[in-house]
Amino acid sequence: MVTEKTQGVRRRGRRPGGADTREALVNAAREVFIEQGFDGATVRVIATRAGVDAAMVNHWFGGKEGLFAEAVLKLPFNPQDIVRDLLAADPEHVGEAIVRLFVTTWDNTGGGVFTALMRSVASHEEAAVMLRDFFFKHIFTHVIGRLAPDNHDFRATLVATQIVGMGMVRYVAKFEPFASAEIDTVATAVAPTLQRYITGKID
Amino acid sequence: MVTEKTQGVRRRGRRPGGADTREALVNAAREVFIEQGFDGATVRVIATRAGVDAAMVNHWFGGKEGLFAEAVLKLPFNPQDIVRDLLAADPEHVGEAIVRLFVTTWDNTGGGVFTALMRSVASHEEAAVMLRDFFFKHIFTHVIGRLAPDNHDFRATLVATQIVGMGMVRYVAKFEPFASAEIDTVATAVAPTLQRYITGKID
Repeated sequence: MVTEKTQGVRRRGRRPGGADTREALVNAAREVFIEQGFDGATVRVIATRAGVDAAMVNHWFGGKEGLFAEAVLKLPFNPQDIVRDLLAADPEHVGEAIVRLFVTTWDNTGGGVFTALMRSVASHEEAAVMLRDFFFKHIFTHVIGRLAPDNHDFRATLVATQIVGMGMVRYVAKFEPFASAEIDTVATAVAPTLQRYITGKID
Repeated sequence: MVTEKTQGVRRRGRRPGGADTREALVNAAREVFIEQGFDGATVRVIATRAGVDAAMVNHWFGGKEGLFAEAVLKLPFNPQDIVRDLLAADPEHVGEAIVRLFVTTWDNTGGGVFTALMRSVASHEEAAVMLRDFFFKHIFTHVIGRLAPDNHDFRATLVATQIVGMGMVRYVAKFEPFASAEIDTVATAVAPTLQRYITGKID
């Protein structure tokens, strides 16, 4: 009790490492990312607001991307791992790898994370900008830049249409039978679309 | 002034036809559809709430679908016309016809209608149910039921993923270059996806 109270008072001072520090960073990060966007937000500003040493961001989250993923996207994995996994997949099956990755991840959280994310995007212009910056600069451009023959940016946005649409129909609007379809059924139907958007003919 | 006040007092009585009647019906319909969903709402209840003769719904809107389209979807066309146009298209190009129909319509309203619709769907379970009932029972099942070889319901939801995703990326998240792409560029890239979802191999 005394410790908590003391920390409450010297909120912008330094805190020792621990679960408390981690949570303080996540909360401060969420505020700063929403205020300033992904590119505008700096690790130094977030750490200062949390009253934590900036080095702890690398220690706990592996950098700004990982902190963003946990604070805003609430992904249960690090975006660098996504890029690594997608690039490790057979380039002719990257479409299927993407469908399985997103649907498995969102299914595991009951779709609540996706719904919260879309609510933010529909209500706050900043959230859309943040999501765009994050996915494009830190995930899709790495994967599509490596695998696609041309038109990388347009292909990345085409991929986004199909991924966002899957999430909207499965978790937000809950249109059946898509909402309850087995992941294999979804992957078989949707993977060829993503594969064409990444490596196939689009013009 | 006196007329308005009188009408305000006898709000649930009958009104004469005219622009005033039309607006009263649209406003009452929006309330009733949101409260009771598309299937639950009846023309009689809507007309009573508006203080208007139920016959005016057919007179002004051609029925419940047309009233829903104007009150909730704010579509600048009647859904029966959509079905007729899509069925008139060459079955091998129905995918392209769908992309062009939706993107042209939404582009003409600056995307605001789509954004408002998604905000409702993301925030109110009833809005999602209403949208699903409407699109499935009154648009897609007519088109897909006529053109698709099998799995009509699953195919209809696959089509929904790509249409909703296009709208989210173009109008809500505004990811470039998709958000500003020419309609021909969008149609060329996306039409084969919808065509496969309706008439092609999905399993």
